[in-house]
Amino acid sequence: MALNRMQDLFNEQIADLYSAEQQLIEALPKMARAATDTELRTAFENHLEETRGQKRRLEQVFEHLGMRPQTERCEAMAGLIKEGDEIIEEEGAPAIKDAALIAAAQRVEHYEIAAYGTVRAFADLMDMDDVRDLLDQTLEEESDADKKLNNIAMGGLFESGINEEAMA
Amino acid sequence: MALNRMQDLFNEQIADLYSAEQQLIEALPKMARAATDTELRTAFENHLEETRGQKRRLEQVFEHLGMRPQTERCEAMAGLIKEGDEIIEEEGAPAIKDAALIAAAQRVEHYEIAAYGTVRAFADLMDMDDVRDLLDQTLEEESDADKKLNNIAMGGLFESGINEEAMA
Repeated sequence: MALNRMQDLFNEQIADLYSAEQQLIEALPKMARAATDTELRTAFENHLEETRGQKRRLEQVFEHLGMRPQTERCEAMAGLIKEGDEIIEEEGAPAIKDAALIAAAQRVEHYEIAAYGTVRAFADLMDMDDVRDLLDQTLEEESDADKKLNNIAMGGLFESGINEEAMA
Repeated sequence: MALNRMQDLFNEQIADLYSAEQQLIEALPKMARAATDTELRTAFENHLEETRGQKRRLEQVFEHLGMRPQTERCEAMAGLIKEGDEIIEEEGAPAIKDAALIAAAQRVEHYEIAAYGTVRAFADLMDMDDVRDLLDQTLEEESDADKKLNNIAMGGLFESGINEEAMA
């Protein structure tokens, strides 16, 4: 695809995100199964539901654009998930593996925050208000998911589990 | 490597970041050459210098850990750079390609912000104050680099170039 107009770039970015969400929907159940801490497992399960909603929201964006949903394989998400897979397969103490899973998941959230931040700004610039509002909702969810993981890491896990187990 | 202790995870994350910075040092000159906007090209060139400093800072961290610098191939950065390469090779209007390069670079910055945020928190938890301070410096630089790219996109480029060329 040639990037001749802002719209070309926007469409390409949305297709990249659609691929990213699809890949994440396949990866999150594995992350949830690998988590030992109940709160962390629940967080991954909840985020799976949220991610399905975000995929549907992108389908609404495609509809606004008058396009059928299309994917442009998101290489960055493929790499992020590969890193998560490596952690899942590693041996180790449960609390440390949980901390590693959180680290991987927070990288994913930050990737999505950057990507949705970009398309949100583009939509705003192109006066696509409905689309911008849809993307805004997802951006807020991703940001909340990142904070939630932070709280699990720094609050619950580190205090009760990781901290003592892992530092021992 | 088995993740038995917090230190194992920390060392692994540092090795992952060391690989990420090395990959980025190879990628940034290509990003700079692909940029049309002078301010953007300069930003990439400056960030290359900064990235070399960040790599040296990680070598200091390895020294603190009593380890020789080692890399653990960072798959996520490999994917992020692959995305950047795809943009470099795409045909298109200069201002739109610049906007695409900024979008790719901001994803990289956010990846690094997440990754350095994690190791900074680990170092703090493990009372490695000198190491934490080193990582803090990089974290601040990455955050500034992201803001700088935002300013180029939303201020200069969009106002003077991208906005008019691209929306036409």
